[in-house]
Amino acid sequence: MAEKTLEDLFHETLRDIYYAEKKIVKALRKQARAAHNPQLQAAFEKHEEQTEKHVERLEKVFDIIDKRARGKTCEAIEGIISEAEEVMETFKGSPALDAGLLAAAQAVEHYEISRYGTLRAWAEKLGYDEAVSLIDKTLSEESETDDLLTRIAETSVNAAAEKKAA
Amino acid sequence: MAEKTLEDLFHETLRDIYYAEKKIVKALRKQARAAHNPQLQAAFEKHEEQTEKHVERLEKVFDIIDKRARGKTCEAIEGIISEAEEVMETFKGSPALDAGLLAAAQAVEHYEISRYGTLRAWAEKLGYDEAVSLIDKTLSEESETDDLLTRIAETSVNAAAEKKAA
Repeated sequence: MAEKTLEDLFHETLRDIYYAEKKIVKALRKQARAAHNPQLQAAFEKHEEQTEKHVERLEKVFDIIDKRARGKTCEAIEGIISEAEEVMETFKGSPALDAGLLAAAQAVEHYEISRYGTLRAWAEKLGYDEAVSLIDKTLSEESETDDLLTRIAETSVNAAAEKKAA
Repeated sequence: MAEKTLEDLFHETLRDIYYAEKKIVKALRKQARAAHNPQLQAAFEKHEEQTEKHVERLEKVFDIIDKRARGKTCEAIEGIISEAEEVMETFKGSPALDAGLLAAAQAVEHYEISRYGTLRAWAEKLGYDEAVSLIDKTLSEESETDDLLTRIAETSVNAAAEKKAA
């Protein structure tokens, strides 16, 4: 068996986040439908569009490293999304639903921020400059989304979560 | 069925991270044994000790909200840790192993940062001031650990990952 290298690790991690991003597109669609707060709904919809672009950028990175774009089950994202679905189920009809959806979305963002941060560092080390700039773009959008969600939580969603349902 | 509130959401999320922290103690022990880089090994060992304190702080938060400290399967952390184990298996004996372990540990830290950030905001909204200060302490340690791991990656682990094994 050939020795495993940083190149292999980069490729494996790329496949992991590629699978994750595709899952996230679907999850965001579902979360946008479930959300009540219009700002939160708009944030989910906007980020769904961005996530579709993230998938395309990853396909370009696969091209750069001369590999076929192919995902690999990412158990982390499966777990994170399955928790989000549990919240959706348990808090359906509750004024705290949006707060739960928002928190679950931030868990997703943080997973992605960590993966892209890692991939960026490895791409740099491996000399894939074009990949670095593609990953940077996505990384900025993930961080901006996380910040936007924090603002929505602070300005409306968390306060609404305390109210009794009508 | 009683209406679900932000209080319930706080409690559920507390149970989720309580389960996660206990899993993380064990995972860090394993990762410290697997790591080759002495700085990385020391970082894992130090953070294992901190994580034991995080478990205790969570028990105090359960006390504050007058609930029994009881975890609830956290599928997110199960997924994240199971990916870390896969890396440990696949990259055993490879110079890229440490880079993979470090990246997996950062995914864990980011999950925790997101959960504690959320719990902090909710505790504030619910008026649990003592819980806010306990969560703040843990949150700082998670962020510091993440930063330390980034420094170790940049200064030694990622460079070593490119080298051929002896």
